Amino acid sequence: MSRLHHWPIRIYWEDTDAGGVVFFANYVKFFERARTEWLRALGFSQAQLKHTHGGMFVVRDMHVRYHTPAKLDDALHVTTTVTRVGGASVNLHQSLSHAQSTAALCDTTLRLGWVNAQRVQATRMPRILMEALNT
Amino acid sequence: MSRLHHWPIRIYWEDTDAGGVVFFANYVKFFERARTEWLRALGFSQAQLKHTHGGMFVVRDMHVRYHTPAKLDDALHVTTTVTRVGGASVNLHQSLSHAQSTAALCDTTLRLGWVNAQRVQATRMPRILMEALNT
Amino acid sequence: MSRLHHWPIRIYWEDTDAGGVVFFANYVKFFERARTEWLRALGFSQAQLKHTHGGMFVVRDMHVRYHTPAKLDDALHVTTTVTRVGGASVNLHQSLSHAQSTAALCDTTLRLGWVNAQRVQATRMPRILMEALNT
Amino acid sequence: MSRLHHWPIRIYWEDTDAGGVVFFANYVKFFERARTEWLRALGFSQAQLKHTHGGMFVVRDMHVRYHTPAKLDDALHVTTTVTRVGGASVNLHQSLSHAQSTAALCDTTLRLGWVNAQRVQATRMPRILMEALNT
Repeated sequence: MSRLHHWPIRIYWEDTDAGGVVFFANYVKFFERARTEWLRALGFSQAQLKHTHGGMFVVRDMHVRYHTPAKLDDALHVTTTVTRVGGASVNLHQSLSHAQSTAALCDTTLRLGWVNAQRVQATRMPRILMEALNT
Repeated sequence: MSRLHHWPIRIYWEDTDAGGVVFFANYVKFFERARTEWLRALGFSQAQLKHTHGGMFVVRDMHVRYHTPAKLDDALHVTTTVTRVGGASVNLHQSLSHAQSTAALCDTTLRLGWVNAQRVQATRMPRILMEALNT
Repeated sequence: MSRLHHWPIRIYWEDTDAGGVVFFANYVKFFERARTEWLRALGFSQAQLKHTHGGMFVVRDMHVRYHTPAKLDDALHVTTTVTRVGGASVNLHQSLSHAQSTAALCDTTLRLGWVNAQRVQATRMPRILMEALNT
Repeated sequence: MSRLHHWPIRIYWEDTDAGGVVFFANYVKFFERARTEWLRALGFSQAQLKHTHGGMFVVRDMHVRYHTPAKLDDALHVTTTVTRVGGASVNLHQSLSHAQSTAALCDTTLRLGWVNAQRVQATRMPRILMEALNT
C-alpha cells in the first residue's frame, strides 16, 4: 500500500471558468481520471471489472482542499496513494501539482465503495482486486 | 409541426471558460436540455421511453452557428421547432436568445435518430411517439 | 443565519454517466448553482459583485457525502444554509433531495473564501455582503 | 496545409452518459483538446497568444456527424487537418477514430474565427500565426 501512482493532466479551455482559472468542480474529474489510470496500472479496466465481476467503485465520501488555482495550458500531475483497504471499500489520498513540483494545488482524501453494478449496493470486492490493492 | 417550444436557461460558472464567456461546447448541452423538456411537454420522459419502448434518441448530425457569446448570469431561452418527422428520425431547429429577445446568440439544426437502447441501432419510432411529433 | 434557501435541480443526460446514475462530480455543480441562486436571493449577482467590488467567492474546502444515487429525469432540490460568517469566508451546509423529500441523496459542508478577482487572493468581504449574510 | 496532426483521447467516466456510451456533446470537447495540441505543435500556446497578441480563436460554425458511439475505456485519436486559411479565420476537418483505425466514430468540419480577446470581435490574425498555418 505504499506505492505512489502518477498521472499527467493538461489544462484545456473546457476545464476553466470565467474566473480565469480551473473551475473548482473539474479538479474532482482530474482525480477520477487518475484513479482510473491507477486501477489500469494495477491491471484492471473498469469496463472489464463491470463485465467480469458485475461491480464498480463509487465515491462514498470526498474531502477536497483547494490551495492554489491551476490555469489554462498548465501541465500538472496527480499522485494517488492507497491509505486503507477494507472488504468493500478503499481509502485514497490524491494530490495535484505542477509537473515539476510536489506542492499541492489541490488535494483530496476519499473513500471508494465497491458496489453491485446493477443495484448500486455495497458488496465485497473480488479477491483478485483486493489482493492487487494490498500489494 | 408548427409548434414552438420554449425553455429558460440560466448561465452559471460551470458554463463559462477563461475567455470570460460561455464555453462553446456548452451551448450544445443547453439545446439538449431544451429537447428533453420539449419531449416532456409532448408527454414523454426519456427514462420512461427507454423503459417502456426500449429506445432512445441519439444525435446523428448537428450544425451549430455561433453568433454572439453569452455571459455569466445571463437569463436566456431556447426555442425548439420540429422541421421534419421521418420513420426513424426527427429534424429540429433550435435557437438560443436572451429572455426578452428573439435575436439568436447561437442556433442549431440537427437530426435525431431513434435507436434501440441496447444495441444503439436505428429502428422505427413507436407509433405513439410519431403521432405526438406530427401533431 | 437560520434561513434556508431552496433551489430545484432537474437531471439531464449531461449529468449522468455509464453507471446509469448521476456522475459523482456533477453533484458539486448542482451545489454551486444553488449557491449562485442563494446569493441572487440575497440581492447579489456574481457578475455584478465582480464588477462593483472586484471580488468573488472561491471554494477553499469541501466535504461531500454520497448517500443514494440520483437518476435521469429526477426532479430534485438543493437546500443551502449558512453555518458561519467570517471576515473573509462563509461556511455552508447544502443538501440534495428529491423534490418532495428531505432525505439527502448527497450533502456537503464547505468553506467559501472571498478573494480579489484579479490576484485570486484572500481579502475582506464588502460590508454590504457581510451584512446580508448575517441577517 | 496538408499536414495531419494526431492526438490521443482516452474515454473516462466523466465522458459517458446513462445511455452507456460517450455523451454526444463531449466529442466536441475532444476536438477542442486536439485543436489546442495542434496549435501547440505549431509553436503556439493559447495562453501565450492571448497574452502576447491579445487574441484568441473562437468557433464560428461547426458541423458534427456522429457515426458510431465510443465507450468507457476506449483508446481513441483525433486527426486535425487545415482545409483553408483566411485573414481572420481557419477552416478545419477533424476526425475521431479508434487508436489503430481510420474509420471515423465522429467527424467535424468547422470554421474558427480569430478575435480580439477583450471585445471578442473579429480581427486579423497575427502574421506569425498565419504563416505557421500556411506552412
